[in-house]
Amino acid sequence: MAEAGDPVVYEVVSSRVPETSGELPQSVTTIHPGTIGGEFHFTRGHMHTRARGEVYLGLTGTGGLLTFDGRRAVWVAMAPGTIGYIPPGWAHRSVNTGDEPYRFLAVYPGDAGHDHAWVAENGMGHRVMRGASGEPELAPFPRPAAGSR
Amino acid sequence: MAEAGDPVVYEVVSSRVPETSGELPQSVTTIHPGTIGGEFHFTRGHMHTRARGEVYLGLTGTGGLLTFDGRRAVWVAMAPGTIGYIPPGWAHRSVNTGDEPYRFLAVYPGDAGHDHAWVAENGMGHRVMRGASGEPELAPFPRPAAGSR
Repeated sequence: MAEAGDPVVYEVVSSRVPETSGELPQSVTTIHPGTIGGEFHFTRGHMHTRARGEVYLGLTGTGGLLTFDGRRAVWVAMAPGTIGYIPPGWAHRSVNTGDEPYRFLAVYPGDAGHDHAWVAENGMGHRVMRGASGEPELAPFPRPAAGSR
Repeated sequence: MAEAGDPVVYEVVSSRVPETSGELPQSVTTIHPGTIGGEFHFTRGHMHTRARGEVYLGLTGTGGLLTFDGRRAVWVAMAPGTIGYIPPGWAHRSVNTGDEPYRFLAVYPGDAGHDHAWVAENGMGHRVMRGASGEPELAPFPRPAAGSR
């Protein structure tokens, strides 16, 4: 797929709720199915700039929520109706581990802030690979070398 | 129903997420169908003690979200998949307007705080009555007289 140019791996639709303190904006993300180099399609991932939690709710398809605090990684398998909670201080990335679009609702504090650079610097601890049976397998993935991303 | 003693009109199940700043606790409320004095079953309702929003998501049944800022009331009809947003500074009450249990997910900031006394003092502006056709009708309901509740 990388050779096909710049394919759309995921899309995000956001509410018009202000991203300010006290508000609770929402978004719906759709990750299209597929793998790149054996790794399931995933979102870029981010850490909040403030100590704020976030709530995910699975809507369609199957996927997972990979959370990482810089030392420990926790994987939450997601399906329609599953609630995944991201405590303050944990970076988070979503992964489509199925064959159809994985879609989820996110609710986050308006003053959470999105720090993508944290993930570029610290990684997410693991990559989520498609195993021989098609099931997700978490492969440890060390912190990226300085300047490599 | 009031004569039958103290029937269960609604039930709330809460997450174990701490109710502290930065966290996003969740709850699922089930309002059983029915009316009392022509008024559809509703939750007690509350204002947040801090300026914090809240997100509701309809899960089963049909109902509505009555919000009130002390002057204006806004009604949001709810069905499975509907998102109702309560901006900071608006009291909120949920109502079952159907014939089956109305169930919804709530996501709220851990430091929002629940002020039920505000509603006892200011009311919610309207009552939601069962109309002749069975549909909900909002009837203006003035502020309760001081000391009447």
